[in-house]
Amino acid sequence: MFNSFGRIFRFTTWGESHGPALGVVVDGCPPGIALSEADIQPWLDKRKPGQSRHTTQRREPDEVKILSGVFEGKTTGTPISMMIENVDQRSKDYGDIAEKYRPGHADYTYDAKYGFRDYRGGGRSSARETAARVAAGAVARKVIAGVGILGHVVEIGGDRVERFAAHTLGDNDFWCADPDAAKRWEVLLDSVRKSGSSVGAVVEVFASGVPAGWGSPLYAKLDGELAAAMMSINAVKGVEIGDGFAAARLRGEDNADRMRPGAGAGDPPVFDTNHAGGVMGGISTGQDVVCRIALKPTSSILTPVQTITRYGEAVEVMTKGRHDPCVGIRAVPVAEAMMACVLADAFLMHRAQVG
Amino acid sequence: MFNSFGRIFRFTTWGESHGPALGVVVDGCPPGIALSEADIQPWLDKRKPGQSRHTTQRREPDEVKILSGVFEGKTTGTPISMMIENVDQRSKDYGDIAEKYRPGHADYTYDAKYGFRDYRGGGRSSARETAARVAAGAVARKVIAGVGILGHVVEIGGDRVERFAAHTLGDNDFWCADPDAAKRWEVLLDSVRKSGSSVGAVVEVFASGVPAGWGSPLYAKLDGELAAAMMSINAVKGVEIGDGFAAARLRGEDNADRMRPGAGAGDPPVFDTNHAGGVMGGISTGQDVVCRIALKPTSSILTPVQTITRYGEAVEVMTKGRHDPCVGIRAVPVAEAMMACVLADAFLMHRAQVG
Amino acid sequence: MFNSFGRIFRFTTWGESHGPALGVVVDGCPPGIALSEADIQPWLDKRKPGQSRHTTQRREPDEVKILSGVFEGKTTGTPISMMIENVDQRSKDYGDIAEKYRPGHADYTYDAKYGFRDYRGGGRSSARETAARVAAGAVARKVIAGVGILGHVVEIGGDRVERFAAHTLGDNDFWCADPDAAKRWEVLLDSVRKSGSSVGAVVEVFASGVPAGWGSPLYAKLDGELAAAMMSINAVKGVEIGDGFAAARLRGEDNADRMRPGAGAGDPPVFDTNHAGGVMGGISTGQDVVCRIALKPTSSILTPVQTITRYGEAVEVMTKGRHDPCVGIRAVPVAEAMMACVLADAFLMHRAQVG
Amino acid sequence: MFNSFGRIFRFTTWGESHGPALGVVVDGCPPGIALSEADIQPWLDKRKPGQSRHTTQRREPDEVKILSGVFEGKTTGTPISMMIENVDQRSKDYGDIAEKYRPGHADYTYDAKYGFRDYRGGGRSSARETAARVAAGAVARKVIAGVGILGHVVEIGGDRVERFAAHTLGDNDFWCADPDAAKRWEVLLDSVRKSGSSVGAVVEVFASGVPAGWGSPLYAKLDGELAAAMMSINAVKGVEIGDGFAAARLRGEDNADRMRPGAGAGDPPVFDTNHAGGVMGGISTGQDVVCRIALKPTSSILTPVQTITRYGEAVEVMTKGRHDPCVGIRAVPVAEAMMACVLADAFLMHRAQVG
Repeated sequence: MFNSFGRIFRFTTWGESHGPALGVVVDGCPPGIALSEADIQPWLDKRKPGQSRHTTQRREPDEVKILSGVFEGKTTGTPISMMIENVDQRSKDYGDIAEKYRPGHADYTYDAKYGFRDYRGGGRSSARETAARVAAGAVARKVIAGVGILGHVVEIGGDRVERFAAHTLGDNDFWCADPDAAKRWEVLLDSVRKSGSSVGAVVEVFASGVPAGWGSPLYAKLDGELAAAMMSINAVKGVEIGDGFAAARLRGEDNADRMRPGAGAGDPPVFDTNHAGGVMGGISTGQDVVCRIALKPTSSILTPVQTITRYGEAVEVMTKGRHDPCVGIRAVPVAEAMMACVLADAFLMHRAQVG
Repeated sequence: MFNSFGRIFRFTTWGESHGPALGVVVDGCPPGIALSEADIQPWLDKRKPGQSRHTTQRREPDEVKILSGVFEGKTTGTPISMMIENVDQRSKDYGDIAEKYRPGHADYTYDAKYGFRDYRGGGRSSARETAARVAAGAVARKVIAGVGILGHVVEIGGDRVERFAAHTLGDNDFWCADPDAAKRWEVLLDSVRKSGSSVGAVVEVFASGVPAGWGSPLYAKLDGELAAAMMSINAVKGVEIGDGFAAARLRGEDNADRMRPGAGAGDPPVFDTNHAGGVMGGISTGQDVVCRIALKPTSSILTPVQTITRYGEAVEVMTKGRHDPCVGIRAVPVAEAMMACVLADAFLMHRAQVG
Repeated sequence: MFNSFGRIFRFTTWGESHGPALGVVVDGCPPGIALSEADIQPWLDKRKPGQSRHTTQRREPDEVKILSGVFEGKTTGTPISMMIENVDQRSKDYGDIAEKYRPGHADYTYDAKYGFRDYRGGGRSSARETAARVAAGAVARKVIAGVGILGHVVEIGGDRVERFAAHTLGDNDFWCADPDAAKRWEVLLDSVRKSGSSVGAVVEVFASGVPAGWGSPLYAKLDGELAAAMMSINAVKGVEIGDGFAAARLRGEDNADRMRPGAGAGDPPVFDTNHAGGVMGGISTGQDVVCRIALKPTSSILTPVQTITRYGEAVEVMTKGRHDPCVGIRAVPVAEAMMACVLADAFLMHRAQVG
Repeated sequence: MFNSFGRIFRFTTWGESHGPALGVVVDGCPPGIALSEADIQPWLDKRKPGQSRHTTQRREPDEVKILSGVFEGKTTGTPISMMIENVDQRSKDYGDIAEKYRPGHADYTYDAKYGFRDYRGGGRSSARETAARVAAGAVARKVIAGVGILGHVVEIGGDRVERFAAHTLGDNDFWCADPDAAKRWEVLLDSVRKSGSSVGAVVEVFASGVPAGWGSPLYAKLDGELAAAMMSINAVKGVEIGDGFAAARLRGEDNADRMRPGAGAGDPPVFDTNHAGGVMGGISTGQDVVCRIALKPTSSILTPVQTITRYGEAVEVMTKGRHDPCVGIRAVPVAEAMMACVLADAFLMHRAQVG
């Protein structure tokens, strides 16, 4: 129910972890935008499992096919249906969890809600669904072509980055812009993986090039939409805009983003700081839109944990299968995609109301 | 645009800080629920300005009138329109800000979006709109009568509570459940107010009595809806569910909420911990639903701050008028109301799909 | 439930026939449009009861108050709340129908759905609600200022107009553009009223000045939205676009609206005919958008009719009170308003997707 | 844009006439309903082209695949994605219409709106999209298992049926319940087809077994939703509920559906007539829900018709390709499907608000 996100730029995802395929229908995309699989595949590749020893060893090519909405290389203004086939499912890995509720997973709650569930690989609650979001996000990026969106991991297992060297992002397996932290995380994650445990992470995403004026008060505020978008990602337990929780510890005069006139006539104003994270009153200020999300440690761990069966019996469960020891890493392209979708939607909403 | 919240239990607010009135239309409320102004007024009174020296001195009786949707003391299933007249407006206090953009306020962004704005008291972006939410929340509470919702302030100006003594909540001006913290905050806020500054706060809200199964995956997940609801409140910059950002620093085995069979046959399972904050996979677990929000310090301060006018000239602005030195205090009933609305909506969605 | 209409230009109505007031919140209106009560009142006056002996004798001034969303004479882009107080209610007239189900009314169905109902004057199902739509429509007209919308009655009691003399519309009590028909209808309606009976009507509404390209396939097609809008008006049982049911009796070659190049370079094409009623594939063609609706005879008649009570007992009911012998007449401004709202919404949707 | 229909039982369609496939995502379906391709295929077969000489000779197997939302033969409460591959496209048939606007088609309006269009077979505006609706409708029928929905053609080319012999519906190629009319239509359609012309039709759909109480006033009234649903079907130009336009020619006393107590205690009331078509005040009465739609003659005819090119030049166009001489025939299963979807949605909405 309500498997759609967005108001004007609106996508609907479908599919389960171990079904034949998963996909997304993107509705409301403007016509005339150049689009092909080649625009989408790189983002899916960024999220793809099995790319380093630090993420799940499930091997999915995640090849996207566009089934509608594009003609002669351009969007037509009609729904864009995209499909990704599931290839490497190994459903037998999951036979054990058909009966046992894994703590931290949606096993118990899906059963409590629906009476039963597709238990293979977590079914609909699996993070595999996020591939569909990434495909939608790739379309969204084309809609807001002037906006750059970049995500990176800022904390793993409580160990935080100390600098932002964007050019080093691709040098490690963690979307980490601090080479020193990347080295420490490598050691940490090897240890975590070997012990069958898992760690949490904090991911930051920012968008530059967003003009002032996007965001629709009051219940489609840019920050409210971002919060909904980010919290809908698997394992996310917290969302911050700008300074976030740290703002609660500032005095008013320290939190104020002072303004100065722009350099030339007609230039937008200059802000001395960006505590607000690029959003005031739910509307973009023209500064970078900055968002951070907290991801809990992967719930699938090799340590046996006390739980119950669907019949209410006490048991222990240990989740074999192939898992990410830190889901935060592969959440980066997903968070980027969700920000792209929120911004594309805000742009179209703005254009609707203000022209 | 999009001044409505909720999918089935859906409310629409209207009104500006200094217009003749503000109000809300609550749509989708089930029929046959006993409802009168007496059910709503106490919650508005809880939020009402001017109740202690620690909140704004604007004097608004905030008397609510029900204009429709109730007949012979019961909801009829038709829209419930509620109105609150603005009484103590003093628009002249705000003449200065017609031209100057106050940092941290929506002045600049509203102008950037709409070309002009109702500057009187912040117009639509004023926190006065939250009175309408509190009225909607009072109706929501009746819809989910078995659920108890309670909010309290857990941190002001970086000073955190150390215990939760619920019975002491009413003994101070801060919705604080730690009497020692309340004493410290009193000193702190007196000092802040006298210096013309402001401080931020963290508010926690929890709901008990929510059965397992509420929440609609994927884009109407209970936690996603809560995040949207909370981030739409003025001054909120962060939202956490359960352990929130702290979960990002836990190991998988420490974050797992272990389950045991319930005491008797048919009893729901027992969880040893509630790191998840009562939500797994977007669906309630039956434990308390726990949410925390970070509120930035009030942007209206008596310290002059550098800014620009709407014509782009550099100036200083100092916000006179009557303001809350810490908006987190009066945000408590607002956050409670938003949680009530989210839960009422989740309940009706659940009933729609699952019966 | 779902007391809102529209997707971007979206209004929500509230209020019952005999409550203290009724109203509407218009959301999504663009900013900067000149708007005051003087823009709205004339349309309400056009719908107002008690203006001739051919409509209900209830005397309602229907004075509209704008409570929000307008500042210094212009819309601000925030919700426009409008309220109309009920003055002449005479609830005692309706005491009898508290227990008896009037055939053709929503009495039985509201009880069947909700368990009880506000029976005073039909409560929420009363056509009084349409005053709120007329107010919303007045705002919509301002949004699409270049579009002219005109409704007229084309048939009463099976007697059809034979010509369209627009300048004579104001010369009679029926919004009739055929002076001869108007004379016949006067005789007919006097007779109907004296006999305590009622008659049905057909109303036509057309919009000129709509550019080609408005309407969003597939489920927000312009004609689909019009059908939903019109069928939501009390007593409407049929909707036609263009030739409507008559088109079902044409051959393909007779129904084809042949096209020719426009007169000058850049001029839109010229259509020889307008069988389509200005909509092809759900999108406007640039011709007049033409819609017709069938309204059943007023269900409130002075003839006793067999029915049952809410306790299931057989009785007769005769509806005293003040009623329109032909609801089609006062439906004209309501149908105009709904067309205005549909077009304003289509315009904003178009602007969102296509720019 | 807005390629979704429904509020709680909500489907989204995608695909063009000559793309690789088309499909639908059904969201909001309750869990635990037995569902397989075998439940859906028969309805698609009913709509399938090429089944008699009276419909298009395009040969599409229209085989549906369920890609998600079903596990071990039952719906899981997650989105049900269904896909139908396009097989027999012959895009070259349509080369001519890339440049010329066919009167009565959406060629001109799509170009006017979007700047260009997928012209192959009408692209998105092709009636092929209705296969997706039929698949959604098949799911909807399972949701409201106690409701029977039946459509039949009541008029072709102005020649109307005179009786309803339900058991004869399958004996002819027209979904005609009057064997005499079926014979006449056979002659008529052979003649129409040979002359390269086309005729319009009127289709009636009714639903039996709908309990009193479904339908959500005011803007999700059952009849309003039906009107939107039906008018969204290709070629539909008119919609009637119950007596429809004929009701406009009745007196109040003749249009009143008199009520009598049900036979036994607790039985629903009995109505003497059903002028209302099973809906009062937007809510079902418990009688058959009756709807009629007018379909214009197929716009694709072999007669050359004057038109313009996309460059504005005057030309003639003659639509070769494979077409239905009377689209009304194959509209029957589509109209049934849309009624099923509207009723399933109304049922879930009712359950949400009233329990």
